Amino acid sequence: MTIPTATSESIPVRSALGQHSLYDFHGCPAEALRATERLRAAMLEAVRSAGGTIVNDTFHTFSPHGVSGVIVIAESHVTLHTWPEFGYAAVDVFSCGVTLRHEIIRDHLARILESKRVEQRAFPRGAVER
Amino acid sequence: MTIPTATSESIPVRSALGQHSLYDFHGCPAEALRATERLRAAMLEAVRSAGGTIVNDTFHTFSPHGVSGVIVIAESHVTLHTWPEFGYAAVDVFSCGVTLRHEIIRDHLARILESKRVEQRAFPRGAVER
Repeated sequence: MTIPTATSESIPVRSALGQHSLYDFHGCPAEALRATERLRAAMLEAVRSAGGTIVNDTFHTFSPHGVSGVIVIAESHVTLHTWPEFGYAAVDVFSCGVTLRHEIIRDHLARILESKRVEQRAFPRGAVER
Repeated sequence: MTIPTATSESIPVRSALGQHSLYDFHGCPAEALRATERLRAAMLEAVRSAGGTIVNDTFHTFSPHGVSGVIVIAESHVTLHTWPEFGYAAVDVFSCGVTLRHEIIRDHLARILESKRVEQRAFPRGAVER
């Protein structure tokens, strides 16, 4: 996996390899959360806009309702799971390096999902010496 | 998406739809982190042992090194990303309901990855009224 770094250091430092963002979209219309193909297109576009390099993707429509989608990117992954019955979608964005703009994915999906309230949490991962 | 619940309630309560666990495996031998097919088999076995229902999976080997794998399950997803050059793997397990035993996945992968140190964090997601 390629790990672009913001700065080059000659002295090994403990720094996080990746950043993991959890986004929770509340108050979304049920129809926006059921539209598998539209959601897939939106996720792919969001990842490209954010600077991600798409490797593969898989999307599934569940019975009676709900969509799960995963995009594997060179930088790690972006996932989406929807619960139309609760007007809720869970998204996570995990990337190594500094190239992927998580907030662009968040904002693009908030628009597509017509979310009334977005919660976000972010966690550094993989503190290693390098 | 099916949402099995631990108890039935006649009064709507705010409860989390899902649980998201982040596991960080440190001190793993590089060869264990490069073995894509072995990692895929281990992940699938771990998910089945933990009570997950597998929908689809996708695994990729990166150049010069590193593996990314995603398993979509009926309950949500399990992902893996490895950095052989740092002896590190990042795993996340996201599931709705109470059926998936996250700790079984953690312990199975810790063995396969021969990890010397495992960090874990867990977050409830999607607090909705139901």
